[in-house]
Amino acid sequence: MSQASSISLTNSKSTSHIQIDDVTHFLLELDALKRVNRRSYVTQTTRKENSAEHSWHLAMACWSIAELFALDVNHEKLLKMALVHDLGEIDAGDTFLYADTRTDAHVEERAGIARLQRERGNSISDLSEVWEAQETGSSKESQLLRVVDRLLPFLLNLNTNGKTWIELGVTRSQVAGAHAFIKDSFPPIHDWLSHNIEYATQKGWLIDA
Amino acid sequence: MSQASSISLTNSKSTSHIQIDDVTHFLLELDALKRVNRRSYVTQTTRKENSAEHSWHLAMACWSIAELFALDVNHEKLLKMALVHDLGEIDAGDTFLYADTRTDAHVEERAGIARLQRERGNSISDLSEVWEAQETGSSKESQLLRVVDRLLPFLLNLNTNGKTWIELGVTRSQVAGAHAFIKDSFPPIHDWLSHNIEYATQKGWLIDA
Repeated sequence: MSQASSISLTNSKSTSHIQIDDVTHFLLELDALKRVNRRSYVTQTTRKENSAEHSWHLAMACWSIAELFALDVNHEKLLKMALVHDLGEIDAGDTFLYADTRTDAHVEERAGIARLQRERGNSISDLSEVWEAQETGSSKESQLLRVVDRLLPFLLNLNTNGKTWIELGVTRSQVAGAHAFIKDSFPPIHDWLSHNIEYATQKGWLIDA
Repeated sequence: MSQASSISLTNSKSTSHIQIDDVTHFLLELDALKRVNRRSYVTQTTRKENSAEHSWHLAMACWSIAELFALDVNHEKLLKMALVHDLGEIDAGDTFLYADTRTDAHVEERAGIARLQRERGNSISDLSEVWEAQETGSSKESQLLRVVDRLLPFLLNLNTNGKTWIELGVTRSQVAGAHAFIKDSFPPIHDWLSHNIEYATQKGWLIDA
């Protein structure tokens, strides 16, 4: 990366009270999301995806799909939601989409976000607010994020020969049910998913039940 | 994640030509960034960080530091730069900061970005432009990104007992040189780095030369 000539980004008078050790403490707290493994595998590997790289993929995918469909969404809001959407998992861990405990996962994740919100060195004053907006909000940004957050693991499972589905004994009706809400919010993606649920069942990757 | 009632995000008339298979093709191309390993280790693990999770960390860190220092930067621009800054590595691979080939890395990375720009299913029309802005631009956003892109691997190396530095025989003068530009653009972070270069040298993690 080339370095263009630069002037100071900071004003030494107004920022002299800031301790960089506090900043780095918070950045190391965030590093923990790289240690939270999900159930899907990264394509062309034998390793499970972690929640940090998934969050990057989600941000890119939301941006890309928003552009393609010319959606009237605020990109800053959308990207921030994607970046923080799994941060609660640092304390709560990842919960599989088809797990029995899925419906309670948000309680622990919300507590994890509250802990990060008050963590030393955190300066993102609206962290909880952005997380809550993606979790329970009904904005276009949060709706799009929910669709893409389902599309991505499906896509990875489909492109790793259904490894995750097979390992965990997932049925076609479980998958269809978990993606049913997309029929209203994003019909073309729902059609694509339905077609590929059929394909995955024919392949024997999903149990035909 | 709870599903609020939703209406369709898309207009079926204007988007009927879009093939979701094209979209997913591009999303799988992006998945490849998770397979590009860097030299630093994720804290509390024995595995190397990959460029996708690093890009997530960089986006979060830039956002956080911009807030803390109340920097007058455009968050959408900043986050997009962070998300794409290493995408050229999908084709070019990661180049270690202290490698002899470092100065030529941008040539291959730029070619990789151009390939992604024209990839089937890519709808981010300004992908190359955003990448170029972070690579060669002199905006406040690009300056901040360059500082934080150096801070993060330093922080990981410092918090994994200098493992990467030791493995690769890095000297204190190499590290000081690579971070010298931060003295002008972000003095408080430069001071912190200088202090910790000293510490890492005393610990024997950096060669005292």
